[in-house]
Amino acid sequence: MNALVVLAHQNAEGSFCGALANLAVETLEAAGMNVVLRDLYAEGFNPVLTQEELALAKENVSGALLDDIEQVLATDLFVVIHPNWWGMPPAILKGWIDRVIRQGFCYAFTADGPVRKLEGRKAIVFTTGNTPQDIEVQINGDPLENLWKNIVFKTVGVDDCTRINFASVIMSSPEERAKWLEDAKSLLIEKSK
Amino acid sequence: MNALVVLAHQNAEGSFCGALANLAVETLEAAGMNVVLRDLYAEGFNPVLTQEELALAKENVSGALLDDIEQVLATDLFVVIHPNWWGMPPAILKGWIDRVIRQGFCYAFTADGPVRKLEGRKAIVFTTGNTPQDIEVQINGDPLENLWKNIVFKTVGVDDCTRINFASVIMSSPEERAKWLEDAKSLLIEKSK
Repeated sequence: MNALVVLAHQNAEGSFCGALANLAVETLEAAGMNVVLRDLYAEGFNPVLTQEELALAKENVSGALLDDIEQVLATDLFVVIHPNWWGMPPAILKGWIDRVIRQGFCYAFTADGPVRKLEGRKAIVFTTGNTPQDIEVQINGDPLENLWKNIVFKTVGVDDCTRINFASVIMSSPEERAKWLEDAKSLLIEKSK
Repeated sequence: MNALVVLAHQNAEGSFCGALANLAVETLEAAGMNVVLRDLYAEGFNPVLTQEELALAKENVSGALLDDIEQVLATDLFVVIHPNWWGMPPAILKGWIDRVIRQGFCYAFTADGPVRKLEGRKAIVFTTGNTPQDIEVQINGDPLENLWKNIVFKTVGVDDCTRINFASVIMSSPEERAKWLEDAKSLLIEKSK
């Protein structure tokens, strides 16, 4: 069973997102999964989908892009970790979606209707924010909940998606953050089964 | 009166987004505004907000970034144009938000509460999509409506924001697209006053 941890944080070391990523790798490896961590900032991922790349016929997709897509296709459990920036992921992760969750590979439109090519997989999304949770939900409409579950993962067939938003990080105590990591670990263990 | 047209399309020439951008420039110039077009793909905008840049003290923000921020601060009417990719802007535009709509300049948090530094400005958002409008609203929850109006522009004080989603582009006739451009032109003229 393969897990793919996708981390987008501009300064992961010492951050709560970084702690979540380390926890995910350790917990899922301990559960016997093969775990790959993609730290998009550390690797300098290029998030810009160009016309040249968009226009490629399926059989001409190759190189690093094909590797990235095949990594997604081989994944049983996705773990996505990022801060909430303007109700969306940071651009570097938005561009990973734009480029790697590619039509023709992860989903397709056929004469018989849409095809979701990642059915049966699972996903966890951990987001962090400084806006308190009740304001994020009631005032901001909690856009990340819809974007990840309904717009991204449902399109490709991943109906089993659970998100936890950890907020407010800036106002949290060390005890709260320790509790949050316990909650995260419980979810990781549950989904690894 | 200054207008800033921000275009994010991977292949603007010949696209409906490109036609909207041309229309915006022509219409607003004809209305007597000073118009700047930022074609993010054409200029190779770098959308990745780094820790180094995020950590800059306000007085140390300089160069191209400061130019971009001052361009926003000098704007009376924003016109944002992009295709709907996963209920969000393309990464190149998401990163323009991340970097340029910068805390301390466009909005701030003070002891007296949040300060919105672009109050009184106006915005138009033109989005394009291939998903029919009723599905975008009823099934997808029309995330771009909330993201642009409530999350981005309201945060900085731009309460006068009107969005038109042109959909479905792929299923539209030339007559429909001509009508859409008329609708866009009417809105541009109205907001230029």
